[in-house]
Amino acid sequence: MSGSVFGKLFRVTTFGESHGPAIGAVIDGCPAGLALSEADIQPYLNRRRPGQSAFTTARREADAVRILSGVFEGVTTGTPIALLIENADQRSGDYDRLKDVCRPGHADFTFDAKYGVRDHRGGGRSSGRETAARVAAGAVALTLLKELGITVRAWASEIAGIAADPAHFDEAFLSSDPLGMPDPEASRMAAEKIRTELAGRDSAGGIVTCTVTGVPAGLGEPVFDKLDARLAAAMLSIGAAKGFEMGEGFAAARLKGSENNDPFTAEADGTIRPVTNHAGGTLGGLSTGAPLVFRTAFKPTPTIASPQQTVDRGGHPVTLTAGGRHDPLVVPRAIVVVEAMAGLVIADALLENMGARMDYLKSLYTK
Amino acid sequence: MSGSVFGKLFRVTTFGESHGPAIGAVIDGCPAGLALSEADIQPYLNRRRPGQSAFTTARREADAVRILSGVFEGVTTGTPIALLIENADQRSGDYDRLKDVCRPGHADFTFDAKYGVRDHRGGGRSSGRETAARVAAGAVALTLLKELGITVRAWASEIAGIAADPAHFDEAFLSSDPLGMPDPEASRMAAEKIRTELAGRDSAGGIVTCTVTGVPAGLGEPVFDKLDARLAAAMLSIGAAKGFEMGEGFAAARLKGSENNDPFTAEADGTIRPVTNHAGGTLGGLSTGAPLVFRTAFKPTPTIASPQQTVDRGGHPVTLTAGGRHDPLVVPRAIVVVEAMAGLVIADALLENMGARMDYLKSLYTK
Amino acid sequence: MSGSVFGKLFRVTTFGESHGPAIGAVIDGCPAGLALSEADIQPYLNRRRPGQSAFTTARREADAVRILSGVFEGVTTGTPIALLIENADQRSGDYDRLKDVCRPGHADFTFDAKYGVRDHRGGGRSSGRETAARVAAGAVALTLLKELGITVRAWASEIAGIAADPAHFDEAFLSSDPLGMPDPEASRMAAEKIRTELAGRDSAGGIVTCTVTGVPAGLGEPVFDKLDARLAAAMLSIGAAKGFEMGEGFAAARLKGSENNDPFTAEADGTIRPVTNHAGGTLGGLSTGAPLVFRTAFKPTPTIASPQQTVDRGGHPVTLTAGGRHDPLVVPRAIVVVEAMAGLVIADALLENMGARMDYLKSLYTK
Amino acid sequence: MSGSVFGKLFRVTTFGESHGPAIGAVIDGCPAGLALSEADIQPYLNRRRPGQSAFTTARREADAVRILSGVFEGVTTGTPIALLIENADQRSGDYDRLKDVCRPGHADFTFDAKYGVRDHRGGGRSSGRETAARVAAGAVALTLLKELGITVRAWASEIAGIAADPAHFDEAFLSSDPLGMPDPEASRMAAEKIRTELAGRDSAGGIVTCTVTGVPAGLGEPVFDKLDARLAAAMLSIGAAKGFEMGEGFAAARLKGSENNDPFTAEADGTIRPVTNHAGGTLGGLSTGAPLVFRTAFKPTPTIASPQQTVDRGGHPVTLTAGGRHDPLVVPRAIVVVEAMAGLVIADALLENMGARMDYLKSLYTK
Repeated sequence: MSGSVFGKLFRVTTFGESHGPAIGAVIDGCPAGLALSEADIQPYLNRRRPGQSAFTTARREADAVRILSGVFEGVTTGTPIALLIENADQRSGDYDRLKDVCRPGHADFTFDAKYGVRDHRGGGRSSGRETAARVAAGAVALTLLKELGITVRAWASEIAGIAADPAHFDEAFLSSDPLGMPDPEASRMAAEKIRTELAGRDSAGGIVTCTVTGVPAGLGEPVFDKLDARLAAAMLSIGAAKGFEMGEGFAAARLKGSENNDPFTAEADGTIRPVTNHAGGTLGGLSTGAPLVFRTAFKPTPTIASPQQTVDRGGHPVTLTAGGRHDPLVVPRAIVVVEAMAGLVIADALLENMGARMDYLKSLYTK
Repeated sequence: MSGSVFGKLFRVTTFGESHGPAIGAVIDGCPAGLALSEADIQPYLNRRRPGQSAFTTARREADAVRILSGVFEGVTTGTPIALLIENADQRSGDYDRLKDVCRPGHADFTFDAKYGVRDHRGGGRSSGRETAARVAAGAVALTLLKELGITVRAWASEIAGIAADPAHFDEAFLSSDPLGMPDPEASRMAAEKIRTELAGRDSAGGIVTCTVTGVPAGLGEPVFDKLDARLAAAMLSIGAAKGFEMGEGFAAARLKGSENNDPFTAEADGTIRPVTNHAGGTLGGLSTGAPLVFRTAFKPTPTIASPQQTVDRGGHPVTLTAGGRHDPLVVPRAIVVVEAMAGLVIADALLENMGARMDYLKSLYTK
Repeated sequence: MSGSVFGKLFRVTTFGESHGPAIGAVIDGCPAGLALSEADIQPYLNRRRPGQSAFTTARREADAVRILSGVFEGVTTGTPIALLIENADQRSGDYDRLKDVCRPGHADFTFDAKYGVRDHRGGGRSSGRETAARVAAGAVALTLLKELGITVRAWASEIAGIAADPAHFDEAFLSSDPLGMPDPEASRMAAEKIRTELAGRDSAGGIVTCTVTGVPAGLGEPVFDKLDARLAAAMLSIGAAKGFEMGEGFAAARLKGSENNDPFTAEADGTIRPVTNHAGGTLGGLSTGAPLVFRTAFKPTPTIASPQQTVDRGGHPVTLTAGGRHDPLVVPRAIVVVEAMAGLVIADALLENMGARMDYLKSLYTK
Repeated sequence: MSGSVFGKLFRVTTFGESHGPAIGAVIDGCPAGLALSEADIQPYLNRRRPGQSAFTTARREADAVRILSGVFEGVTTGTPIALLIENADQRSGDYDRLKDVCRPGHADFTFDAKYGVRDHRGGGRSSGRETAARVAAGAVALTLLKELGITVRAWASEIAGIAADPAHFDEAFLSSDPLGMPDPEASRMAAEKIRTELAGRDSAGGIVTCTVTGVPAGLGEPVFDKLDARLAAAMLSIGAAKGFEMGEGFAAARLKGSENNDPFTAEADGTIRPVTNHAGGTLGGLSTGAPLVFRTAFKPTPTIASPQQTVDRGGHPVTLTAGGRHDPLVVPRAIVVVEAMAGLVIADALLENMGARMDYLKSLYTK
């Protein structure tokens, strides 16, 4: 298998190249009885869609999704849900002069090394365009989660080294900020920095924070399939992601046990919960019932306008200047990808957890 | 499945509780023809073994591994390799008074929430003792990698906030340092900090850096099974791990594209390689041939001697003071666990990559 | 997962309902470098296509396949290959009066029992139309096998109780026989029996024999993934299949060991092979190098024109008379489905076997 | 992976060679809260144990099973259940003279062809002894099924060509018949035939029929993971199995649709069920609620006392006369293996089906 299948029970297979006729996803394992239509999926794709601000590529894609199967009379039937997105604006010609170049920071060289052949148009399968299929599939998962009272929310907590101040979190601002930041001042500073320091010649990275609220305690599987591990894999599978941390994350390495531990308390109704949430919502890889909180670091876009020295497939020196259409910044569009991947992980964990207890089997199978 | 299976082709299943009769692992998918005996595995287990310094638990375990199957006349046969480690020093009685307590930072509460029942003795399945089985299985993978010229090496690059200076990397010191640090001065300072600041009452965390050299270009699978994603999952599946980063990792989020990109060059023999290695050895999730470099953050041990306020399963307030035997610091013993998990990921990726090209099939199946 | 993923390394996911907009398949794990175009796939779909003789449904479908991804400049790239077939002739209205009926021999009742909802149009996901997607995916596997000198061939060895005589096997006749039988006399008798005894009111079953030649020795995996087991699952996953046997199969239960054993001999070049092939090409679940030979039994088509007493979803008695368009006989169209599924099993086994020996890894990964 | 993992959610990994120190199994995914001890498993192993009658090998094995993990205070905890069976009576010396022989009907040649090396002692991994691990794991599944009112029962319906008459089914006789037949007269005749016709020089095969009652409607997954397909794979994975049929099976190929269809009726309480059960309990691969009924054909034991001409690994002619200790008949001991494998399939299907409907998720996850 070439790695395009995600999940164990809520299983998603994606396909498609940047400049092929279409990309898409098939979900096998979505429970029957979920109200679903294209209208549930399209808003997520719209958030990822290119060409929406000065910070993103000028490529124009409607990214209109079609459900080809698995839904009947507005409800999922339990059979595979195929989602198709046609590629409209494929100016492949833009890429011809790059077809033999090993672009720094891109997967040209590694795809060649692995497969011997490669669809060079726009990065082919390694293009960020691949994430549209994830977002479509993730939107189905997120629709399912909503039915169960679970909410996934992500934002840019840092861009180009400018961090949002959690104390200035402004939900309304966030919904319309082209950078996807929740702190108006930080957003303004980051935008300014991009304009002046990058000035169209360079690119910037950033960090996306994601929270999942309403997760029941006990999700995730011990040992290798800890929720932390599944989320980390989901996030690091996004093209430009280079780091992941749960709760305090790397900062926890510098805390004492007495500072990092989350003591438990009991609510009036007897519900036990951690008082603090340094852990980011898991213990032993299983959810505590507190919100999941994790952060994903994204590298700066590798395509930059400044000339770069590199080589071609034959090893000959090449001076590369940017072609194609690319984002100076992947973070704003990566936010909804993070949400989608988180949705897939949680939906899968919910299904897998159903077999954790004989009680659950008895309640379902015996009267 | 409850999450105790790791890998797709080099597939490991582990089992065992901290205070049960034994723990172990079964590897299904190790190629035939690998020279293997207990002597290849035991040194790795010895590095993880408790009771070796003032910084680790006083529990005494020989951790002697037995190969029960899959090896005949000193060579693997291609059939499952079962590895068994008896639990010797099980003072379960130590844990009786803890059996209903929701210990902060431990998985007691979450196991209860998930399963309704729980083996409370020494953390049961969520104990760090579970990692001995990983190390045994990982040692087989590392033995395989050695045959192919691939080397995995990890060390503590930071403990209790004291970072090793890469410029002072001392291989000889590292091999005998009880803290697993490669920088003598940093090790001395960290040991001092633990003695004075923790003083037996608190615990510390740290960061493990791991490198893998000799990895051929093209390993890993695009999209969801990127090498980065598989390594991240492997690392975050280790009990106390809370963060992972590849190459520049979180720092990359603050670099410009021009700073973070690794241009390519060609060797005299035509081999193409990146000049720098900000990426940590992957592009598009596939290995570049440069060393893999990644870091894993570990939280401070949750068990501390200072009293902690928490609740029991019934929600009643409890003041917890440490029982059992625990490490004030997991990092020194986690180093070999990191190596083991990295070994499992690379062995799996090597096998999976064999099907990447028709050329490979033809060379194997046609004369 | 709802069961629409097949294979471990050459992994196929199918989707689509009988009367939805399209059906299709995604193959993840096809090696790069295989010459492939729609022209390699279409002939297999044409063999399965309805409306080609008096023995098959009158539904008209072009079944034109489109490759949406994974192929660039006529060669596979190692990334997912998406195959799309539009549904053209969807007279769903034909099925409205059946939507609440529990048709005997069909999956209406069981889909309701499982999912609570169901796409009733033409059997929805349980329609034989689903097999077109398998055939498309299988055609890719069969194209790969051809490159390695492996040939899969199936035919109707028995229809409506009339068995083909192996002594009268006529390859030329087989290629054009609408019943897919290799024995002209048996075909004539079976056709006659269908015309006179069924007379448009009833339906018939039959047996498909399949051989795979050119399979190298050692394919398959011991214990649970024996080649026999994988083939059995592949065949029993075809809608109307109710039995499977390998080599002598059920007849072996009545033979003595001395009759059923295949002694080995050595060719002049030292190649060892079984002298006879009662086993059907496997021992211990691994291929012997002799042709794989297996038979799959298909039940008579459940849809018949004669009235049948049954109930609807509410439990009310219903007299059912056939609607929609169906085959009086599934066997002729099932032949290519058997070949497709066999192709998928062998392609997967070839990939999995590549990791069987350290020698193979060394030949690929060390110079 | 080398094929020793079975199941998707109730996942079993087995290990061990015929003459290694031990064999065993690890179950990952058994729900927590199932009462379980060695006493639940041992009776199944005792039924498979060799040396119990004139019809089985004289090898003496206590086959005492130990639970090493996953059970605490008599109840499963949801974590992996490791089961260990020591090999006691390993007269490996018996096999030395066979180590280079390609025994007819055995997997010597194919293991060599696949792996290059092989544990020749008693068949190594391909020995029937491997099935003890399946039986141990299957016993856990069968214990789980009992809790849900599901019963699995198998018997020898045919031995050496002598078929049991269903009209003479005698439950009491069956429980003590060394041949595992339910018809006293058939058993007497089969025993007589073995004594006179085989006379210690040859071997015989047979057929095992298995029924599963109490299965709720809707189990199994459509398309590739039909219950029929999973059962077929499970049965054909047993060493000597060469055929499988569900319900009417091969006989269905000769029936008309009007004869083979099972009309539905409604019980007084509204429950819908098929009136007849030609299908053997499934439609579209999903259970109907009627008993599952299937048959598995076993070949005659390949080891026979009469001399056989074959070759050794070097291709040199060899006359083989039986060594070691073997059953003249595998069927009596295979019966409990069939039950075990059926148990594993049904337990897995029960778990997988839990995610089929949003209703089920809501009942579990929302209050």
